[in-house]
Order: sequence, then C-alpha cells, then structure tokens
Amino acid sequence: MKISEIGEFGLINRISRDTIINPKNILLGIGDDCAAYYASPDKITLITCDMLVENIHFTLSTCSPRQLGRKSLAVNISDIAAMGGIPRHTLLSLGASSDTSVEFIDQLAEGIKEEAKLFEVNVIGGDTVRSPLGLVINITLIGEVEPDLVVKRSTARPGDLIIVTGELGGSAAGLILLLEGEKYSAIPLNIAKKVKLAHLSPVPRIKEGRIIAREKIATSMIDISDGLASDLTRICEASAVGAKVYASEVPILPAAKEVGKLIKRDPLAFALYGGEDYELLFTVSPKKAENIVKLIKKELDIKLSIIGEVREKQEGIKIENLQGKVVDLQPKGYNHFRG
Amino acid sequence: MKISEIGEFGLINRISRDTIINPKNILLGIGDDCAAYYASPDKITLITCDMLVENIHFTLSTCSPRQLGRKSLAVNISDIAAMGGIPRHTLLSLGASSDTSVEFIDQLAEGIKEEAKLFEVNVIGGDTVRSPLGLVINITLIGEVEPDLVVKRSTARPGDLIIVTGELGGSAAGLILLLEGEKYSAIPLNIAKKVKLAHLSPVPRIKEGRIIAREKIATSMIDISDGLASDLTRICEASAVGAKVYASEVPILPAAKEVGKLIKRDPLAFALYGGEDYELLFTVSPKKAENIVKLIKKELDIKLSIIGEVREKQEGIKIENLQGKVVDLQPKGYNHFRG
Repeated sequence: MKISEIGEFGLINRISRDTIINPKNILLGIGDDCAAYYASPDKITLITCDMLVENIHFTLSTCSPRQLGRKSLAVNISDIAAMGGIPRHTLLSLGASSDTSVEFIDQLAEGIKEEAKLFEVNVIGGDTVRSPLGLVINITLIGEVEPDLVVKRSTARPGDLIIVTGELGGSAAGLILLLEGEKYSAIPLNIAKKVKLAHLSPVPRIKEGRIIAREKIATSMIDISDGLASDLTRICEASAVGAKVYASEVPILPAAKEVGKLIKRDPLAFALYGGEDYELLFTVSPKKAENIVKLIKKELDIKLSIIGEVREKQEGIKIENLQGKVVDLQPKGYNHFRG
Repeated sequence: MKISEIGEFGLINRISRDTIINPKNILLGIGDDCAAYYASPDKITLITCDMLVENIHFTLSTCSPRQLGRKSLAVNISDIAAMGGIPRHTLLSLGASSDTSVEFIDQLAEGIKEEAKLFEVNVIGGDTVRSPLGLVINITLIGEVEPDLVVKRSTARPGDLIIVTGELGGSAAGLILLLEGEKYSAIPLNIAKKVKLAHLSPVPRIKEGRIIAREKIATSMIDISDGLASDLTRICEASAVGAKVYASEVPILPAAKEVGKLIKRDPLAFALYGGEDYELLFTVSPKKAENIVKLIKKELDIKLSIIGEVREKQEGIKIENLQGKVVDLQPKGYNHFRG
C-alpha cells in the first residue's frame, strides 16, 4: 500500500500511536497546533535538530528503514549527551514521495519509537509532507540538564587532558564496507558485521555523559559526529585553545583495525577523520582524569582513553604521529556543501 | 558566489549573525552541540514544526527568498498564536544544493531574521545540509503560554459560537494569480497586489490570540492553514462535536471577491477550501461572543466575524449556503500525499 492511498492524516494516525512513553509533564502530544509540556522548573532546556537527506546522509540500499529511524534519533540524543543532559521529547518532520510504501514509513517510525522508548523520549509532534525527490527527515530533540552540570564546548583550558569514550573508526570502516562491500568479500563476516553495526546503529553515550556531568569534572565536551580531528578543532576554536593529540593513544575499534589491514587503508584515518562514531570527547584537569576513567570503567564497563592535552592557542592543533613526528591535525571530516 | 565556495561552516557563520533578539534566559545559541535556555518556570512550553519542500510548498518563481524566509517562520508563529501563546525561540534546518548562491541563502536567512525580530524570536540553532534535489526548510518554533490561558482544539462545546479573525480567501486568490498570472492580465494591479501579498506575506495573529487567551473565553482555537472547512473539521473531530456555518457570514477579503468575479471562480470556495490565510478560528459561549468582537475591534482594529455555531456531533458539520440550503461542509483543503 502506498502512502498516497491513506493520505497525510492516515499517516499521522499511524505514526502517532504509542508515542508518549512518559506522560508526566505532557499536556498535549501530536494532534493540536502545538505540542505542550511543562519544562522542569529547576533545569535548563537543551534543544538540537538534524536534517537527514536521502543519498547524502543515508542510502536506503545500505540500511533498513528501522535502522534509519533509530539512528536518526540516536544522533540527536548524542548531542544531548554531549551537554551532560537527559533527552526528553522529540518532533519528527518527514518528507516522502507519494509512492513511498506505508510499510516503509511504519518501519521508519517504529525505529524512531524504539530508540525513543530506550531513552524514555516522548514523540510529541512533527510534520508529514510530500517530497517528490526523496526522503528527508528532520528530528528536533529537547532535553534538559541541571544548571550547574551543563558542559559547553567553549571552556576548555590549557593544561587539561583530552579524553574520549569507547573506540573510534568503526563507523567509517563500516560505511566503506556498506558502500563497496562487493570489492571486499574476503573480509570475515564477524568483522564486517561489527563495523557495519558501528555505522548503522550507534549508541548515544547518555549514561557516560551524565556521569561526566554529575562529577563536574569536564571543562568542555562534544560528541564525535564529524571525526575526532574536526570535533576537537571545534572545541579548540570555541575555547580559543590549542591541542596536542598522540596518535598512539587514539583508541581504534579492533574490527576497524582489522578492516584497515585487509583493505589497505589506515585505520587511524578512520578514527581521526571518519566521523559518526558518536563517542564523547571531553577535557578535564589532569588531577581528575584518572578518576573519571576508573569511575566510568567501574560503573559502565566502558573504556575511556586519555589521548592528548589542551595547549595554548598559539601552539595550534597538533598530532604526534606513530613515527613520533608532530604535525598539524587537519580538521578534515564531513563538511556539507564542500562534500 | 556559490555556497560550495564557503562550505557549511562559512554558511553557519553568516546565518548565525544577529540571531539573538532577547538574550534574557538564553545560555547558548548557535554553536554548541545543543542550544540551551531557561524556560519560564510558570509557563507551559509550546513547540511546533513545519517542513517546507521546494515545488510543493513554495516555488521560487513566485516568491523572493526573503518572502520565503519570513513566511516560513510566520506560519509557525501562527501555530503558537492558535494556542494563545507567545513565540520565543526558533531552530532552522536548511537543505540546499551546493550550487545555491550565497546571496540567496543570505536573503532567505534575512527574511527569517526579520520576521523573528518582529515577534522577538531568537534563532538559537539549526542544521545546514546538502540537498541535491531542491530546497528544504524545517522550522521548529518554541513558545510559551500561562497554564490557565492555553487554548486547545479539543474543548469546543455544542452551543458555542464560531468566530474567525480578519478576512479569508485572499491567499487562495493570490496563489492563482501567482501561478497563472499571464492568463489574468486584465486584473487591476492594486487588486492583484493585495491577494498576492495575502499569500506571500501572511501576518500571524499573535496579538489577537493573546487577547483571546487573556480573556479566557475561547473553548477551542486553531489557525486556518488548510482552509476554513478543513480546520473547522479538525476542531469538531478533536472536540467530538458538529457545527453549522452560514456562508453569508463568512468574511471574504474584498480583493479576493473581486478576483473571483474577474476570473469566474467562487470567492467563497477560496475562503472555505483555499487555506493559508493564517487567521484564527475559535469558539466561545454565546454570552461572550459580542464582547470579544468589540474588544478586538477596539484594541487592534481587527474585524471578527461570528460565522456559525457548534452543534451536537450527530448533527454533522454543515454549511447553510447562500441559497439558504443546508449541505455538508466537506473538509476539502490541502492533504499531503493526496495533493
């Protein structure tokens, strides 16, 4: 069945089922001119949005609609994590052509609602429109954070250590295999599966972000969406500081290393420039670094890696490569319009 | 100059100038993982979003980028007006092809910021992405309203009178002239200009909505985006009531009447089914109807028209036409995917 057969209102009716996970504080969900809710009086409201365009941000040949739905919300949840916040409510704008199947939209919405449920996020509104030339998804996500726990990008200080959660490079390796899989059929299935999963199903680091915020130790934080090099550069520019990263300390997903070896591409480049790993990158005073690494290991069994240090602005943003040579860390990564 | 020459970050830098009109309560605008603000502790948060797709919602041959920008925000402000609220902050997601000119984007952003300034709305965030197949705009707008003043769609009661602000049909007449202008070159310029303006530059009824809310007299309210017939049907469905409208009482913009006569189209149809007039449609107890009509006339010099009454659900949604015959009021209007 095509969505032209059920129309806009039929579509909204289907999407709006089971959208309120936590009705507390919700006055109106989908179905009025606006959604309406009570914000927590003692919290700061956080809000972020992402627009995803077919064949730019995703290709339907490499992901299922359910995966696409989950990831669309996950990348926004990751932005809330990077502020130390908790996600609360989301609005979904969806542009699709009239001959899109209802089943496709159902699965896409199902994916969004699955991810929403996992993080206790209410779907409270949105828009559904005709988009003849391809699928467009815009997700707006509202979250909140205690005023004394919010972590900005702009407050890193020279001398701080630079820490990253988890392991990088999986998403970039996964994307290569998803797009050019037939060229690399010799790669063991379990390895291929791991990196593809890293690309298709990122897990936003909400719990890690909350612990980092709660401990009040981070002087700045960002999520790695465009690549370690680009996102570290954003922290440095916003904070007017420099940085030095040690290539030897950058944690690379073992499966990504394996893929790099097999397809003769540098796995460090996946980690530095690949993006879409959705790990948290943050800075802390050296005195507090070891503690947070231990604490998150203990509470969540997640590895944190100290990968470098914040420097004075005039020292620039550098990386000491595996040969011990210090070079500029180029903020290569995804830049829209320049591709 | 094309936007591919300045890249995503160059574009964001240009758009993010002069975006905070009212810095009170804003912690972070554009430039971090999320925007952050303090919600008013004694208010309900309202939130709405609209996605606009090139050649579906707008055609660049009929509007300037500045007009498009203003209208994109205005239609969302209208949704806040329909809840009795005040608009506060907006997020703009923009998809455009790499060969879009920087001047075009500048003017589009200028239009959004002009409208934002007029209504004291801060532009606090957004996303800019590549969209090879055409322009896509998603506006998310946050507003607020006092808990005892919020007006829903779902609380109209049989016996209430139905009232509409201003005059209808101008936008539909204007759209016809914009799309098929060469066919109708005999229409006087001043008439054509009025209806085109009604389509291109709608004025959201924030002041009217605030008075209606403040007086606590409306039992339901909606803004007319899809046409009087469709939007009244939404109130009736949400409130589980019927309605009777008198065609003779529906206020039609004189210029729209004139256009109807000249192009041999029924101006009442423009008013009932045309949509995009962005007037407010609300219901009140009969005892309070005359008062609110007088009050808004006095305070804002805006005409309100009592156009019908709310009935029991089983009576259906009817219109007494100009010949005195009572017929079903069909919720014709814009339905995406059925188009």
